[in-house]
Amino acid sequence: MSDSKPEKASQSLSSVLRCPRGPVDVSTFNSAATALFSGTGKKDAAAADAAAQAGLDDLQERLFANAHVDDTTTPGATQKPAGSVLLVLQGMDTAGKGGVIKHVIGMVDPQGVTIRAFKAPTAEERAHDFLWRIRNALPEPGMIGIFDRSQYEDVLIQRVEAMAPAEEIEARYGLINEFEKEVAESGTRVVKCFLNISKGVQKKRLMARLDDPSKYWKYNPGDLAVRSKWADYMVAYGLALTRCNQDFAPWYVIPSDHKWYRNWAIAQILLETLQSMDLTWPKATFSVAAEKARVKAS
Amino acid sequence: MSDSKPEKASQSLSSVLRCPRGPVDVSTFNSAATALFSGTGKKDAAAADAAAQAGLDDLQERLFANAHVDDTTTPGATQKPAGSVLLVLQGMDTAGKGGVIKHVIGMVDPQGVTIRAFKAPTAEERAHDFLWRIRNALPEPGMIGIFDRSQYEDVLIQRVEAMAPAEEIEARYGLINEFEKEVAESGTRVVKCFLNISKGVQKKRLMARLDDPSKYWKYNPGDLAVRSKWADYMVAYGLALTRCNQDFAPWYVIPSDHKWYRNWAIAQILLETLQSMDLTWPKATFSVAAEKARVKAS
Repeated sequence: MSDSKPEKASQSLSSVLRCPRGPVDVSTFNSAATALFSGTGKKDAAAADAAAQAGLDDLQERLFANAHVDDTTTPGATQKPAGSVLLVLQGMDTAGKGGVIKHVIGMVDPQGVTIRAFKAPTAEERAHDFLWRIRNALPEPGMIGIFDRSQYEDVLIQRVEAMAPAEEIEARYGLINEFEKEVAESGTRVVKCFLNISKGVQKKRLMARLDDPSKYWKYNPGDLAVRSKWADYMVAYGLALTRCNQDFAPWYVIPSDHKWYRNWAIAQILLETLQSMDLTWPKATFSVAAEKARVKAS
Repeated sequence: MSDSKPEKASQSLSSVLRCPRGPVDVSTFNSAATALFSGTGKKDAAAADAAAQAGLDDLQERLFANAHVDDTTTPGATQKPAGSVLLVLQGMDTAGKGGVIKHVIGMVDPQGVTIRAFKAPTAEERAHDFLWRIRNALPEPGMIGIFDRSQYEDVLIQRVEAMAPAEEIEARYGLINEFEKEVAESGTRVVKCFLNISKGVQKKRLMARLDDPSKYWKYNPGDLAVRSKWADYMVAYGLALTRCNQDFAPWYVIPSDHKWYRNWAIAQILLETLQSMDLTWPKATFSVAAEKARVKAS
């Protein structure tokens, strides 16, 4: 799963879980892998998560700060333009999109996060091109935006269920690449995660929802119809990962059979992404000494 | 600060911190109080917060679940209508509105939370009545909505700065009461918290922002102009707490000189609010046995 370039001495998880360029067959990925995790399981993951949380907390606040300098009084005060992060989560039912939001995104200040879950398009959304609702949900500067499903639904379920003419579906890969390029160039780091589970693990998790009355609400009888087309979905994922995997909007394939590994891995990739943004604290737009004197006298 | 009725053996924090009915003089509230907190300070608060978090986590998920039963296949499946919670945070600069969101709201799944910070109204917002932008930001069923500032800005800064004619400001208290009644009757629990700090604590916190380059972005030279009108703001808060304190939308006065107490107290009031909602898990809208058989065969 690593790309073909020689790795540095200390590998980043981002480089190890980065989806290789070129044609991809998702069945070749090991959904139970625990790459680069140095502990032995769930218990060690808690400690590793706590370490990641400290880093995420600091960097998320820097990201936010750069877009929210609380200064309405200094005309023309300029700051470095603030960037943002877009985390796209895709995966089959029970792969853990919600779990990642709760456990990984729950690590940072909720004021710096926007979350959008994309369901079947509404009548209004269907009246526009498929990227319209996606554009409307892009994160503001300084924010970490999460897409629970995304533009990829339009080449996944829509492809499997032939919900649009074949040539239209084909055209969407190129449109998605153009769109993501534009988003990246506007200062948003795009991080796309395919939460990869095995068909067997999905069965166990569906059964677990039926074994626990506090989980009935998560179960939808319609999920089995999607499950019955597992192979078709894997083909569709393979095409999406093959055709829309540019360096400006990379796919990561997250082994997700172990929930603790999935959460740790995404926390780590998010951390590495923020680290690569060189986030410094914004400078004061006022004289600190003069303001100290004013506060003292107040 | 407790109301005049005799308290039960085991007091709820909600009853102790509930703003008394009738004319209120905010200077009579002790901003450094630690009512009902059984430990001795910050260290004990961490353990108390962990206990509150477990309760909040469970109840927030129940609230969310009732509005998000994942069933698109059972026609006419009916569930108990889902409620929501609206937490309104008001207080002088540095009182800790952001800190409460980070530390208290950060305890629950971010998927179940919407946060809206109200700044000076935009041109579009000013073109509508003052409650228009507030209505648009109300939480959906199943959600905990947070207002960082709120409709009360229109009787606080707007009163102090005479930003609208006096009779218009006067009329707003009644309009706010009508609005909050409508919100409460639609199934939203309204919880309003006045984060009460002393003028001396504000000075310390402003100075702390100037002592730490990672906090410069939070400092606004304009904050001192507001600080210079402290007494006027206290009068305006007193009027808001006196005139808009109905049982369907109560004010709580949160002693906020100690950050750890402020956070613990609001977590506790939120917990008690959710506990009072009698949140049960939604029932299955399908035959659990039949679905187990289908999953098994899949």
